[in-house]
Amino acid sequence: MRTQVAVIGSGPSGLLLGQLLTRAGIDNVVLDRASKDYILGRVRAGVLEEGTVRLMDEAHSGVRMHAEGLPHDGFSLAFDGRDHRIDLVGLTGGKRVTIYGQTELTHDLMDHREKGGALSIYEAANVTPCEFEGHAPYVTYEKDGITHRIDCDFIAGCDGFHGVSRNAVPGKAIRTFEKVYPFGWLGILADVPPVSHELIYANHPRGFALCSMRSMSRSRYYIQCSLDEQIDEWTDQRFWDELRRRLPPHHAECMVTGPSFEKTIAPLRSFVAEPMRFNRLFLVGDAAHIVPPTGAKGLNLAASDVHYLFEALLEHYQDRSNAGLDSYSARALARVWKAVRFSWWMTTMMHRFPDTSDFDQKIQEAELDYLTHSRAAATALAENYVGLPF
Amino acid sequence: MRTQVAVIGSGPSGLLLGQLLTRAGIDNVVLDRASKDYILGRVRAGVLEEGTVRLMDEAHSGVRMHAEGLPHDGFSLAFDGRDHRIDLVGLTGGKRVTIYGQTELTHDLMDHREKGGALSIYEAANVTPCEFEGHAPYVTYEKDGITHRIDCDFIAGCDGFHGVSRNAVPGKAIRTFEKVYPFGWLGILADVPPVSHELIYANHPRGFALCSMRSMSRSRYYIQCSLDEQIDEWTDQRFWDELRRRLPPHHAECMVTGPSFEKTIAPLRSFVAEPMRFNRLFLVGDAAHIVPPTGAKGLNLAASDVHYLFEALLEHYQDRSNAGLDSYSARALARVWKAVRFSWWMTTMMHRFPDTSDFDQKIQEAELDYLTHSRAAATALAENYVGLPF
Repeated sequence: MRTQVAVIGSGPSGLLLGQLLTRAGIDNVVLDRASKDYILGRVRAGVLEEGTVRLMDEAHSGVRMHAEGLPHDGFSLAFDGRDHRIDLVGLTGGKRVTIYGQTELTHDLMDHREKGGALSIYEAANVTPCEFEGHAPYVTYEKDGITHRIDCDFIAGCDGFHGVSRNAVPGKAIRTFEKVYPFGWLGILADVPPVSHELIYANHPRGFALCSMRSMSRSRYYIQCSLDEQIDEWTDQRFWDELRRRLPPHHAECMVTGPSFEKTIAPLRSFVAEPMRFNRLFLVGDAAHIVPPTGAKGLNLAASDVHYLFEALLEHYQDRSNAGLDSYSARALARVWKAVRFSWWMTTMMHRFPDTSDFDQKIQEAELDYLTHSRAAATALAENYVGLPF
Repeated sequence: MRTQVAVIGSGPSGLLLGQLLTRAGIDNVVLDRASKDYILGRVRAGVLEEGTVRLMDEAHSGVRMHAEGLPHDGFSLAFDGRDHRIDLVGLTGGKRVTIYGQTELTHDLMDHREKGGALSIYEAANVTPCEFEGHAPYVTYEKDGITHRIDCDFIAGCDGFHGVSRNAVPGKAIRTFEKVYPFGWLGILADVPPVSHELIYANHPRGFALCSMRSMSRSRYYIQCSLDEQIDEWTDQRFWDELRRRLPPHHAECMVTGPSFEKTIAPLRSFVAEPMRFNRLFLVGDAAHIVPPTGAKGLNLAASDVHYLFEALLEHYQDRSNAGLDSYSARALARVWKAVRFSWWMTTMMHRFPDTSDFDQKIQEAELDYLTHSRAAATALAENYVGLPF
C-alpha cells in the first residue's frame, strides 16, 4: 500500500491531523495498535483552547463540540477559604475556553473520518516506522498474522508517550528533559452536577484539589495524593470527605455527591524530547512532550503541533516548499516550552510539596496573594490558560 | 534622658524615620554603635522606587536626590547575546526608578537631621532595647565608660540584619524563614562611564552579571561567583574579562574599564522574621528581612516599613489611636513577602544554579523568552521593579 502521510496513533492528534490532511486532499492512513472501542473508552482532559476549537472547525468536525461543549469565561483559584476568580474573558480581551471531553472530540473526529472514507487501521500490531532517515520511508504492521507495509512520503508519530515513534529514533539523536513530581492525582468521574459552573483549582494545606466537569450533569474531581496511595483504600465516601476538606466552605457545603464510575491515580510528569523532527518522521503531541494536567495544556499542545505540521505538509505538497517542514521542530518547541513552563509553574504554585521548606511555602502563598491582586499577573495566567497564539 | 521614640540604627531607615518624626513634631533619638564616618563609608544599593523618593520628599531631604539622581525609564534583560528592554514607564503607566547611591541618601538625611537639631548618638556601645514588652521601655548604651539610659514610648529597631533589636526578642516569640543561595556577587566600583545609560541584568551560561552605576562617571558592576572565591585572586583585569564574556557583544566591545576602588564578594540571602512588632519594639527594614540584591528591593522595602510605622506613630500621637501600631506587622509583612517573592523570582530567573537540572535550565530559558514576548508578564516584572504601592 502507498499513501502520502502515514499517521501512527488514532488519538485526537492523529485524527485531527488526518482530518486536516484529508480535507486538503492529502492522502493519509491512520494506524493504531488499539481497537476503536479501547480508544473511545479512555477518559482524558477536556479543556479546549480557542486555537484547538478553531482547528476542529478547520477539520469540519466541530459541530457537536459547539452544540454540547460548555464555554467557560473564567475559573476560580481557591485558597485561604475563599474563591478568587480569574476572569479569562475580561483579562484576555474576550478569549475563553471550551469544556468538551477528549473522548467526545475523538469520537467526532473518528465519525467524520469514517464518513469521509479515509482509511484507519485499528488493532495493528507491531507498528514500526522504517527508513525515515532516508528518502523512502515506510511503516510496517501486523494484522491477522500477516505483515503489511505502507510506503509513504512522511510519518507522523502521534502515538503518545509510550508509543513506538519516539522509541524508533536512535537514542543519540534525541535529547530529553524530564521532571517527575512527588505526588499524583486521584481522580473520579461521577454523574452529579458540578459544585460550581466554573472550574475550581484549590490550594489547601492538605493538598491540591480540582473541581472540573464533563457536562452540567457529569463531574470530574481530583485530589492531590501521595504516589504510594492504594486506590482500593479510597472509597467514594473517603474521596468526597477529603475533597470537601480542601474546598472553601461555601463549596463544600453545597457539593452533590454520588457513586463514582471511574477512579484512577495518575502520576504527574513534565517531559520534552528534542528535536521533534527526524528527517521524514515528525513527532506530534504526547509522543514528544508530556505536561502535568494542571492548566490543561496537554491536548491543546498536541493541537498546536498538528497545526504546525499540517501547515508544513500543505506547503510541501501545494507550494513545493520544505521551509515549513524544516522549521517544524523549532516552531513547535518554542510553543511547547512556553506551555511546559506554564504547566510546571501552575503545578508548583497549586500543590503542596512533601519536602517544601517553610520559606518556599511562604513564597507560594505570596505568589497566590500577588496573583490575585495584580491585574498584570492575573493577565499572564489568563493568557497562558486560554492558550498563547499558535 | 527621655524621648518619645528611640531609634536604634542610623542607616537610611532609622534616619528616614527620624526625619519624618521630627517633621511631625515627635521627639526621637537615633543611636548607632558605629561612627558617622563608618556609616557613610558603606557602599550599598542605589535604585530608588518612587515611593522611596516620595518619602525622602516628605522628610524634606530630597533636594540633592532630585538634582543629582538619575531617573531611569527602563532597564535591559540581556540573554542569548541580545538586549531585551523592559520599558518601565510604558508598562506601568509612567513610573520610573531613580539611581541615587544609598550613601548619598544617608548623607542627605544626616545633614538634615543635624541642621534640624535632632539628637543622634554615634559610637554608642552595647545598645540594648529593654522592657519593650511592658509599658515603660527604655534603651541603654555605653559611651566613654558610662552607661546611659533613654526612656521612651516606643523603640524602632532599624539596626539591620546583625543588629541587637531582633536578637533582643526571645527566640520563641519570633519565627524566621530563610533561603541561602549557592553563589555570591563579586562587585566593583570604578570611576568609568557606565557601559549603558540604563542597567543591564545579564543571564549568561557563565553566570549572572549586572551593569549598574552610581552616576554617569561611576560604574557599579557585579558578576555571579561561587561562594569559595578568594577576592585576592580577582585582579581588575580578570574581573573585566569575565564581565565582558557575560554581556552581549555590542556592550562588551564598548565597555570602558579602569582601576576599581572597591571590590567585595557578598553572599545572597532571603530572610524574613515574623512578626515585626513586639509590643513597644518595632522591627524595620533589614532588622526584619533581607532580600538578595537582584531587583534592588532591600532599601525600598525598608522605606515602606518606615512609611507604615511613621503613619502608625502619627496616629498614636495625633489621633490617640493604636490601630496603626496594631496592624503595623501585618501591613508591613504583606508587602515584604511580595518583595521577597519578587527578589527570589528574579534571582532564580537570572542566575545559573550550580546543581540545576537540564529541565530547570530549559524552564529558565522559557521564562526569559516568555517574559520578553508577553506584555502582561513584562508588566508584572515592571510593576514589581518600580515598586508595588505602599
